[in-house]
Amino acid sequence: MKSLLDSLNFPKDLKNLSASDTKRLSNEIRQFLIESVSKTGGHLSSNLGVVELTLSLIKSFDFERDKIVWDVGHQSYVYKILTGRKDDFKNLRQLDGLSGFPKRNESKYDYFDTGHSSTSISSALGMARARDLKKEKYIVVAVIGDGALTGGMALEALNDIGFRKTKMIIILNDNQMSISLNVGGLSRYLNKLRTGERYNKLKTNINTSLSSSDLGKDIISKISKIKDSIKQLVVPSMFFENMGIKYIGPVDGHDVKAMNEVFSRVKDMEGPVIIHTVTQKGKGYSLAEKSPSKYHGIPPSNNKKEEINKTCKYTYSKAFGNALIDISKEEKEVVAITAAMPDGTGLKEFATTYPERFFDVGIAEQHAVTLAAGMAANGLKPVFAVYSTFLQRGFDQVIHDVCIQNLPVIFAVDRAGIVGEDGETHQGIMDVSYLSMIPNMTIIAPKCTKEVYSMLKWAINKNSPVAIRYPRGKDILHNLNVLTEINYGKWEVISEGNKICIIASGRMLQHAILAKEILKERGLNPKIINATFIKPIDKDLLNDLKEKGYDIITIEDNIISGGLGTAILQHLNCINYNGNIKLLGYNDEFIPQGNVEVLYKKYGLDPESISSTILKLYN
Amino acid sequence: MKSLLDSLNFPKDLKNLSASDTKRLSNEIRQFLIESVSKTGGHLSSNLGVVELTLSLIKSFDFERDKIVWDVGHQSYVYKILTGRKDDFKNLRQLDGLSGFPKRNESKYDYFDTGHSSTSISSALGMARARDLKKEKYIVVAVIGDGALTGGMALEALNDIGFRKTKMIIILNDNQMSISLNVGGLSRYLNKLRTGERYNKLKTNINTSLSSSDLGKDIISKISKIKDSIKQLVVPSMFFENMGIKYIGPVDGHDVKAMNEVFSRVKDMEGPVIIHTVTQKGKGYSLAEKSPSKYHGIPPSNNKKEEINKTCKYTYSKAFGNALIDISKEEKEVVAITAAMPDGTGLKEFATTYPERFFDVGIAEQHAVTLAAGMAANGLKPVFAVYSTFLQRGFDQVIHDVCIQNLPVIFAVDRAGIVGEDGETHQGIMDVSYLSMIPNMTIIAPKCTKEVYSMLKWAINKNSPVAIRYPRGKDILHNLNVLTEINYGKWEVISEGNKICIIASGRMLQHAILAKEILKERGLNPKIINATFIKPIDKDLLNDLKEKGYDIITIEDNIISGGLGTAILQHLNCINYNGNIKLLGYNDEFIPQGNVEVLYKKYGLDPESISSTILKLYN
Repeated sequence: MKSLLDSLNFPKDLKNLSASDTKRLSNEIRQFLIESVSKTGGHLSSNLGVVELTLSLIKSFDFERDKIVWDVGHQSYVYKILTGRKDDFKNLRQLDGLSGFPKRNESKYDYFDTGHSSTSISSALGMARARDLKKEKYIVVAVIGDGALTGGMALEALNDIGFRKTKMIIILNDNQMSISLNVGGLSRYLNKLRTGERYNKLKTNINTSLSSSDLGKDIISKISKIKDSIKQLVVPSMFFENMGIKYIGPVDGHDVKAMNEVFSRVKDMEGPVIIHTVTQKGKGYSLAEKSPSKYHGIPPSNNKKEEINKTCKYTYSKAFGNALIDISKEEKEVVAITAAMPDGTGLKEFATTYPERFFDVGIAEQHAVTLAAGMAANGLKPVFAVYSTFLQRGFDQVIHDVCIQNLPVIFAVDRAGIVGEDGETHQGIMDVSYLSMIPNMTIIAPKCTKEVYSMLKWAINKNSPVAIRYPRGKDILHNLNVLTEINYGKWEVISEGNKICIIASGRMLQHAILAKEILKERGLNPKIINATFIKPIDKDLLNDLKEKGYDIITIEDNIISGGLGTAILQHLNCINYNGNIKLLGYNDEFIPQGNVEVLYKKYGLDPESISSTILKLYN
Repeated sequence: MKSLLDSLNFPKDLKNLSASDTKRLSNEIRQFLIESVSKTGGHLSSNLGVVELTLSLIKSFDFERDKIVWDVGHQSYVYKILTGRKDDFKNLRQLDGLSGFPKRNESKYDYFDTGHSSTSISSALGMARARDLKKEKYIVVAVIGDGALTGGMALEALNDIGFRKTKMIIILNDNQMSISLNVGGLSRYLNKLRTGERYNKLKTNINTSLSSSDLGKDIISKISKIKDSIKQLVVPSMFFENMGIKYIGPVDGHDVKAMNEVFSRVKDMEGPVIIHTVTQKGKGYSLAEKSPSKYHGIPPSNNKKEEINKTCKYTYSKAFGNALIDISKEEKEVVAITAAMPDGTGLKEFATTYPERFFDVGIAEQHAVTLAAGMAANGLKPVFAVYSTFLQRGFDQVIHDVCIQNLPVIFAVDRAGIVGEDGETHQGIMDVSYLSMIPNMTIIAPKCTKEVYSMLKWAINKNSPVAIRYPRGKDILHNLNVLTEINYGKWEVISEGNKICIIASGRMLQHAILAKEILKERGLNPKIINATFIKPIDKDLLNDLKEKGYDIITIEDNIISGGLGTAILQHLNCINYNGNIKLLGYNDEFIPQGNVEVLYKKYGLDPESISSTILKLYN
């Protein structure tokens, strides 16, 4: 028997699907997700959790005209399957393949691109207000997780939304998780709504009172009014109602029929409505149900790179986590902060080793940075571990609360440089630029995982803001000498050479070393310098290179604009350098999804491309 | 009779001050504020509003050890007066004078620097958690306005604060204003709490019921429980209680005795507490009470510059507001967005002319940017008018929601360049750097107020993200030719010359023109180019300058790192330019408060300094 998934026409055939076929279809979708994502890698748990929710949304709304925004967007696989993109899953998250997030240029059913958290209410509200001004008629839906709801901008949007009573629907997809377990007051509050204990108890009390007593008519009417008031106060969730948003729920997010009923009811309501659905992340796949964090994003099963990498011990994240635990034994003032990413940033073990010194603030990068600043102002040495592109959220706070006061906050900037399959929104290629423009900031980069320890230790004792940037993944080279003594603003000569000098840092230094091997076979022998410090640059060493007549090649896993190369160029200009300097890095464009190696090659930053660029210059 | 303000020792003499002397003192403080700020300029309304609150705080707490964070900080004048800084008010907001915001390096009583909104809960929470880890004993207080509370990071902090039950006190200074009137659901909610209508009604209902009826004992007990529940639900403000924060209030913020009682009561409470005080902005000064926005920040009364400037019509903000109204007559898709700054950004008249097309989202820059992105995705042409340093708050959203999707959002970047007396936190000297690093972004700058119109019109028809940056204040030169036709990426030759070419934009172009006049007297005649486009740069024109052998001087009212000059340098390096290029702008340091002209002089960017720098190079 042909599967429903392969025989039906989506999305239109969903409209009249029977309950039993809907059930069957949801099983087929789960089967497809597990098989397909196991092969290609990608987000699994979150998608398994929204199978019924997505089915019900597509059945209840008409996304030919109604518009939907998926917050973060990694839970949009089911929606993609059911809007004609099932066959593209074989190239999921590969260069030129299907995106792991909604993309307007991928399908007419995708109405807004996402990737980072907490943006959906703002963008959907913008769409709805545009609709109203243009006097158009359709429904705008935002689907947001309970984790994303703690992000400041989602709360800013909630505050704004009720003000004009703009008609839109928010689906709160409450799975009690962001990527890891949710934290914070809002999370506890949602839990109260879920269990409904307080309301149930009150309701019972009043009903008993009303039925079992001999009350006068007058008093019955009064008590009934009170009951209504109580209901108004407790059931429709004051949190949202106070914001001017109608609240409905909780609804079982795996019960298609129940959701269909709610969705059809709210379609014609005026003003903003929030529907609280409760789902289970990883639903239907026992491994993922038990460990949803682990199955949040999974690598491809036949990952050859993983095989090769068995020789190296740690990812940079793990090296960071281990180093922080070690250092924290001696350094009692060290505390660690994460914005809902204890696993990804390598802090999980720190959290269990030093629970009192570990702070998961939820998806709240702005707050995380200023919390750290407050701690630093009172004598602690906070380390905020955060992905490069997520720290963009705390940009103003880094300037305003940390750097103006020159407070000793350490930023462990993970996923710096190309990260690969997550695409444009996650490529960490801007941090060097947006951090080095800030006065009082120091930026360093370990040349290998083993160097993370000494760098972190140095940073913790620096007593001013320091960012340590390191890439996703593991080392390529394993035999590098680790710097044991770090001197402020001093670079390290890795190998001598003549005529040409390559200056690079972090992973690009490893590429430079490999490029040198290729170049030596072709008769060139560049000197290699490790820009241990991305800021400040080593002016003495640059002056020396000028004196000795070197040409200079800079390589960075960052955009060129405002990066390491331009800082070097600027100094060379000041000292009237007469040689040639070539800056390698990313030009003024966003970098799409794809395998990391494929992308380095495409953008000329793998060892082979680097060597051939240099050969072209010198042949 | 000598005034209390001059005869008492602050803060310690406040402890035992009688009620009548406290009243007298508060009058003296108001008198001093009005007289002093009228002379020097500065923030008035917000400080008049917190006289009693500050008196009560200093009386109730011991800020030798207890710590306080003033959100935004422009309401800290009374605190400064009462902590030994009264005599410094004559140099308020001048270079090397008293800051208009709390500054740790100004007084031991200032515990955290502020300037931007909504940071106080995060930083105070950080301090409190540091205190607990170090097993110290003191109280941490954050004072935050109801406007600042709508900022996303304040809400992120509220979500985090209840989680660990960290002991701290939040004073919600509720004056129903941010700088202008507050908007949004949270504001309406606070209003409900203030008036207490719902609670009062419910309470009356129940009391009537209980007293006038013949109820059995059982039912009385049950109803009493319900009453308690209602009280719990309504009075202590579920919004905060749900976050795990004890709520007390509202308290009259002009009643010192009432506040003293509350503050002494909460000092020993465990966990986080929020005290809702209601104050009146501008209290005690009838002009400011009536128009608190107008008296939010006032210029000095004997402002000579104002006299001179009577010859020029408009500030840039006003020119922008007028232009937008004009353009919006034809361009029906144009809408305007502000984050609580309708006055400052010049949008007030637009708001009354096109109320349906005007969106004040509250202090919520992140949401503002993504709301605009959503509107643009649905066919509108949103213009977000925002101060240069406040847009830092929406940095990630500009990248993630606007530029990756290449959506036609216009950023009217006001207060770009040095703004003067507000100091480090408000100097708009980073926007060129943080915006030009973003792919798909175009940055333009009008060379005079009259050019704002044509630039805005061009931007609105560009159909991709455009930032228009312009300074605080008015023109210096009034006779410049306005560009009527703007060509993408093309610069404008202002005047021919020889040997040297100055490239500048915006206000710096006006300085360059004035510098040229000085230089001509000294025998130099530089060519002057207006970098109409800061991004992209005009490569053809640069190639031409290279061919013709010009030396180049770039001038920008921005940090050099990542700015216009480095972009030009980078291109010149690519084309093997052999001439000299000198970049003028700000080095890697924060720019302190001070008069704008004084600061330009100090940092070498006034016409005289520019000309003498050039003379030094060529003599």
